[in-house]
Amino acid sequence: MNNKKESICFPEGFLASGLNCGIKKNGKKDLALIFSPSECISAATFTTNSVKSYSVLWSIKNIKNPINAILINSGNANAACGEKGWSITTKIMENISSILNIPIEKILFASTGLIGNVLPEKIITKSLKKLVENLSDKNGIEAAKSIITTDKTIKTEKITTSIPGRKKNNYVKFGAMAKGAGMINPNMATMLAFITTDAVISKKLLQFALKEAVNDSFNMLTIDDDQSTNDTVFCLANGKAGNKNITQNSEEFIAFSKDLKEICINLAKKIAKDGEGSKKFVEVSVHNAWNKKDARRIAKRIAGSNLVKTSIAGQWPNWGRIMAAAGSVCARINPSKIKLEIGPYTVYNKNPIKFNESNLKKYLSEKEININIYVDEGKENATAWGCDLTENYIKINKKE
Amino acid sequence: MNNKKESICFPEGFLASGLNCGIKKNGKKDLALIFSPSECISAATFTTNSVKSYSVLWSIKNIKNPINAILINSGNANAACGEKGWSITTKIMENISSILNIPIEKILFASTGLIGNVLPEKIITKSLKKLVENLSDKNGIEAAKSIITTDKTIKTEKITTSIPGRKKNNYVKFGAMAKGAGMINPNMATMLAFITTDAVISKKLLQFALKEAVNDSFNMLTIDDDQSTNDTVFCLANGKAGNKNITQNSEEFIAFSKDLKEICINLAKKIAKDGEGSKKFVEVSVHNAWNKKDARRIAKRIAGSNLVKTSIAGQWPNWGRIMAAAGSVCARINPSKIKLEIGPYTVYNKNPIKFNESNLKKYLSEKEININIYVDEGKENATAWGCDLTENYIKINKKE
Repeated sequence: MNNKKESICFPEGFLASGLNCGIKKNGKKDLALIFSPSECISAATFTTNSVKSYSVLWSIKNIKNPINAILINSGNANAACGEKGWSITTKIMENISSILNIPIEKILFASTGLIGNVLPEKIITKSLKKLVENLSDKNGIEAAKSIITTDKTIKTEKITTSIPGRKKNNYVKFGAMAKGAGMINPNMATMLAFITTDAVISKKLLQFALKEAVNDSFNMLTIDDDQSTNDTVFCLANGKAGNKNITQNSEEFIAFSKDLKEICINLAKKIAKDGEGSKKFVEVSVHNAWNKKDARRIAKRIAGSNLVKTSIAGQWPNWGRIMAAAGSVCARINPSKIKLEIGPYTVYNKNPIKFNESNLKKYLSEKEININIYVDEGKENATAWGCDLTENYIKINKKE
Repeated sequence: MNNKKESICFPEGFLASGLNCGIKKNGKKDLALIFSPSECISAATFTTNSVKSYSVLWSIKNIKNPINAILINSGNANAACGEKGWSITTKIMENISSILNIPIEKILFASTGLIGNVLPEKIITKSLKKLVENLSDKNGIEAAKSIITTDKTIKTEKITTSIPGRKKNNYVKFGAMAKGAGMINPNMATMLAFITTDAVISKKLLQFALKEAVNDSFNMLTIDDDQSTNDTVFCLANGKAGNKNITQNSEEFIAFSKDLKEICINLAKKIAKDGEGSKKFVEVSVHNAWNKKDARRIAKRIAGSNLVKTSIAGQWPNWGRIMAAAGSVCARINPSKIKLEIGPYTVYNKNPIKFNESNLKKYLSEKEININIYVDEGKENATAWGCDLTENYIKINKKE
């Protein structure tokens, strides 16, 4: 195995490239391409925002087709930029289509960045030829660098599954990259994720597995199902592993789904850990909820509460804020049944529990904080991820 | 008219008092009493949080009765404090009932403050006699001082309506006081409001008018209908004005409802203006929405968006954040129809509009910011209130 085949190039048959075309004025990379010479089965989840990026609209239109490529730019969201938005999007896609010599409807598009500006068509078009020339299975990291905005680090993942491929000792693989939520915030979890696999799988099963994986990962980063104008998760499967077709309810499908979910959860955690201005990663697990929806709602609300997040930033064991956040969502929850743990410390169990405050403060000064709440209403669990809320978050987003 | 009859003592026949009983260790007032020797018709709206304060549970139990008094403490929320909470609440109410010589079921209770601690029964009980002795129609302001927590200012209102009372040149009156949301935040708009009136009105109509008023005022301070463990709005009507009974659909009911709503809106604005750490008051108006629910959702989401709030804090005219916030709620909205104004400046009208950035930055440095969004889907409007989000908010809530 070639170690340079990282990120989205880890599975067989995926090429990538990334460069600076000039959308970002600081010279940082801002344009990426994922390419599979073999047509891919594709699946996707898109933002539910009514103000959708033209890139999202383009991809929604074409996701039904076999796919060969995804063009991605950072630094400009291609959203709320008026009636020219669609025609400029189309022109850029015509250009990349002609250079790749691939029908235009087989190419997807994703954008992230500032909302409200038309894409600089000329700047982008000028660089498309070089972008295609640079395509290589060694350039996964370059692509991962090209899609980030305020992220402090690139976010990539890879997994070799237990599903045998056609060749001996060869297994189905996953590769992935994502760009963060600059912030982990219900209003604007501007995130993109791209997952590649060389598995042979049907479109229906791929979409099913992706939806399940996204529900338990990226969707647990946001609150109230709010999303940005651009949120997109793509999964492409080019079939290059040559495995036996994965069928519903098969052992292989279970393994495939498990690994796909693991990829998504790992990327989601990386996004949470890179939250704007944050110093701490927070994991909230809800246990024994009445149903899955309740469990998810409670976990997301606690992880997203400004008050809980500022308490954690200040090492302040104000557990009442966690109780109030938990109770504020529409879910079966009753304070006379709840048990609440912050790290190893139980702070409430049907009644407030006396705890050693200096020990808890010490725990809250760690880099990773775990909150567990047992609601004793049923059997469903969920976990949400977030970060603390600091003055630095405000500074970054004020941009004075 | 005696000018000292301020706040909740403005209408005929309401007495009040306020003092420090020792819940707050800094000597600030923390215990208040509203008293009407004549029984009052009462109406109320309560938090929808599942983790309810025992004070809220007490009042929900008794709101059906004729009411003579409301006891209020600040500094302790009487919420999530375990199984002792109810018996301690009952003991305190037994004590005030015996001192006032009023049946216990005719007294309401409201609390605000830190969640998770049992009320200090002895401290409170010791002060109840003095609290009752101090009752006077000159003590409305003392009561208003006793219910605040992190509020920078007390919040009171009064209105003389156009509805004639029994005596010549005497009109039905409203008085009111509220404590803020220390913060204007969906998770924890810990607010209490108390409205008194000397009107003769039925319980059914009073509740109807209050619900309508609260929907267009206090409920437009919060997002996603989340509320704290303690949020309560009470309205007491003692009938002392001796007006002709107000009937449904009458001119008087329209006037009564209008003035009640005005009281609530004015208090809501005062709460928004006193948002923790905030420097600016923000009013968001949505015009021409498909229905009232859409209008309210969009307005509340924009006013509550951390990203919109930090942009305003930083005088950054990043109007794309407003568009993204508007689109993120479940409502009929289409970017190709939207017009968006920040103060006097149109920044988007189906397309981005070029604006003078330094003028807009100057406008955003003012103390009161208006955002108007025309969604062109129907005829319904709504207004929400909030404030900017600053580093100081984080500092206050970290409490390091």
